[in-house]
Amino acid sequence: MNTSGVELMAADLSTDRLHAALGDPALASMNFLNEVAGRFPEAISLAPGRPSEDYYDVEDLPRYLRRFCDHLAAEKGADAASVRRTLFQYGRAKGLINDLLARHLARDEGLDVDPESVVVTVGCQEAMVVALRALRTDEHDVVLTVSPGYVGLTGAARMVDMPVWPVREDEGGIDLGDLVDQLEAVRAAGKRPRAFYLVPDFANPSGARLDLVARHELLAIAAQYDLLILEDNPYGLFQAVDGERLPTLKALDTGRRVLYLGSLSKTCFPGARIGFVVADQRVLAPDGGITLLADELSKIKSMLTVNTPPVAQAIAGGKLLEHDCSLVEANAREILLYRRNLHLVLDGLARRFPHGEDHGVSWNTPSGGFFVVVTVPFAADDAALEYGADKYGVLWTPMSHFYGGRGGENQLRLSVSVVSPEEIEAGLDRLAMLIADLSGTEMPAETSAL
Amino acid sequence: MNTSGVELMAADLSTDRLHAALGDPALASMNFLNEVAGRFPEAISLAPGRPSEDYYDVEDLPRYLRRFCDHLAAEKGADAASVRRTLFQYGRAKGLINDLLARHLARDEGLDVDPESVVVTVGCQEAMVVALRALRTDEHDVVLTVSPGYVGLTGAARMVDMPVWPVREDEGGIDLGDLVDQLEAVRAAGKRPRAFYLVPDFANPSGARLDLVARHELLAIAAQYDLLILEDNPYGLFQAVDGERLPTLKALDTGRRVLYLGSLSKTCFPGARIGFVVADQRVLAPDGGITLLADELSKIKSMLTVNTPPVAQAIAGGKLLEHDCSLVEANAREILLYRRNLHLVLDGLARRFPHGEDHGVSWNTPSGGFFVVVTVPFAADDAALEYGADKYGVLWTPMSHFYGGRGGENQLRLSVSVVSPEEIEAGLDRLAMLIADLSGTEMPAETSAL
Repeated sequence: MNTSGVELMAADLSTDRLHAALGDPALASMNFLNEVAGRFPEAISLAPGRPSEDYYDVEDLPRYLRRFCDHLAAEKGADAASVRRTLFQYGRAKGLINDLLARHLARDEGLDVDPESVVVTVGCQEAMVVALRALRTDEHDVVLTVSPGYVGLTGAARMVDMPVWPVREDEGGIDLGDLVDQLEAVRAAGKRPRAFYLVPDFANPSGARLDLVARHELLAIAAQYDLLILEDNPYGLFQAVDGERLPTLKALDTGRRVLYLGSLSKTCFPGARIGFVVADQRVLAPDGGITLLADELSKIKSMLTVNTPPVAQAIAGGKLLEHDCSLVEANAREILLYRRNLHLVLDGLARRFPHGEDHGVSWNTPSGGFFVVVTVPFAADDAALEYGADKYGVLWTPMSHFYGGRGGENQLRLSVSVVSPEEIEAGLDRLAMLIADLSGTEMPAETSAL
Repeated sequence: MNTSGVELMAADLSTDRLHAALGDPALASMNFLNEVAGRFPEAISLAPGRPSEDYYDVEDLPRYLRRFCDHLAAEKGADAASVRRTLFQYGRAKGLINDLLARHLARDEGLDVDPESVVVTVGCQEAMVVALRALRTDEHDVVLTVSPGYVGLTGAARMVDMPVWPVREDEGGIDLGDLVDQLEAVRAAGKRPRAFYLVPDFANPSGARLDLVARHELLAIAAQYDLLILEDNPYGLFQAVDGERLPTLKALDTGRRVLYLGSLSKTCFPGARIGFVVADQRVLAPDGGITLLADELSKIKSMLTVNTPPVAQAIAGGKLLEHDCSLVEANAREILLYRRNLHLVLDGLARRFPHGEDHGVSWNTPSGGFFVVVTVPFAADDAALEYGADKYGVLWTPMSHFYGGRGGENQLRLSVSVVSPEEIEAGLDRLAMLIADLSGTEMPAETSAL
């Protein structure tokens, strides 16, 4: 909101008296992208990473609530007063549906998790803030993450004044050689590498997936450098090719190296804002007492939001219960939808930019998730985005927004999650016209050198 | 959870590698109080500050949801797809029910608030974190608060590494002379006093209320010292005496000095976890652009929790709509219940400790809210609490827990909000037995000198 013309008063503020995070380029990016999308509401958007709405139904919500209340009564022996108290009153900081989330992890990920090591959070965003807040003791603590990477992690780190140290991505998801180099560089700078954040399965924005060998190597590096791993897994269920899903890092973790971050935003629905963190690490106090890290994280959470809304947990819990806590089962239709859309986008690109022709356009082929990255022979920047929205009616995301600094200047991210087959075809037609248009222009020297 | 006996692994942590907030005495206090309450489930508890559950009904929740959906359709012209998207998808960081909260403030507090200056948060706790995170730019920024004070504010400040500077309370709620002294002391220490947090109406734990003259004086001091005021108003509706309610500080604020923090936990229900902050201050950017502080706080919020659960906002919104956004009207029964209970406790104390007799017991007489403070002729400490729970079956809260350091050693807080008349009578009988028992003991030198 711009309120220029308004008269300033003595109690008003200037940006230099507000936290530096508010000047972060990542925030300006997000605002710019939202603003462009708002200006071109009729454009076909291959930009947002939201889940499909095709199978949501408002009538489901009261049924989920009832189902959870029935569960409290039948399986927990709660009387009516206790059910009422559970939904309406404050609850424990650690959460209400920890056991249901542990059952989900057992059924869908083969993880054997003690419900007491789960903390339910207001979306995965709060889980990241809680974990980083616990780990950031002073200005020496650093979190590493893949670049290009998820902007939410950057935001969470800014909230606790923790520097984010980038690690290069390669086709396998992470350049593990660069990870080791950066760990050495962090130490050489007198800092402490506390954790490495990544999305091993179908990352946002790249769609990359770590293979099994890389997963084992990453765990070995973490042990060698006494590093915790923050494994974020919002898209793992959405595999687009046949065959077994790969084990999560947490499933391979025999040394309690991994904090597993979960989100129900894509697998249940975003409007419940339910995320969680599994933290089975032990914490040793000076008096010799030992607690679970999950208990310490719960204390942090209690100081941020007291507890995750019980009504929202109850609704998500009801959906979990309807599918015996399998989110693979709950998302049977969505898994097919995202798979179909990913294939339509990949096939559609191949038809419009045939192999062997000199169009200078290439793309990756993720085996699941929501995103495809396209490389083009021009600067896929904010100006190109606005130009394409205005002239051709198509929206996408410049990859440069996912790099902390330089990178991705001639790449764009396409999201396949909230578009119909018809929109995919029309959107790719429009994108192809934009690419043909801009490929004729001279490339700026600094991007053509990439 | 104590897991001693477990074998530690290299990835486990020690407390010195976790954030210092986890060693805060305020946290240990809360844990101790919860632990004692858990050990004596049969005791009559005059401890918790939770709202009454007497009028909650699980069947209300689907009706609130429907009411909010009808409102979206009828008043906002939303079609079915748009209603579904509003409830199930992500939403804007600033919130969904800002207009309904502005109507509540107009109806119940006489406040004329632009909905765009409201940010909806996950309970008032997140509102405090968001406000302090924005204001804390470096180690020089300090927040002042009344002592004894609300522990939630201390927790929020710990999350952003911001020192809390105590100001003395007097019978009128705040010792304004001490406020000025402390502001001078903060400056003399090379620090910046950024804000003063208080609950002007029926404070937790003291029940104190600022009179109208003090409200005006406080605003004048804030202007003089270029201080923002964080006004938290969870109990203002619950006036226990006839006559007009006092205007909020925000209603008296002609200079945008006040950030108003709201909570629906007591006036709607805690399980929705809906709070909010009104921030109509302007923010000047280096380029001359002017934004609303609420927009800056929304950016902070987006980095903490993305947005407040739309399903929880919809439920709270439905309850607001059922009462044309008047929470005074929605709480007509609760206002009478708390009023009755407060009178029962005050009358019950007067009968058990008659005026003019030499029992050494006195108490304040709040004109509303949930709390009464009793002064006793012995140390009302954790040992006395445990002793009373075990021997007499009564629970209360040692006032010392609400002081950052020393203070309140021979005072206890009684809460009137979740007890029946029968429990109040029996609880006061038991408390009187405990007081008689402990009054016979010799007082420790350091507390008798207070």
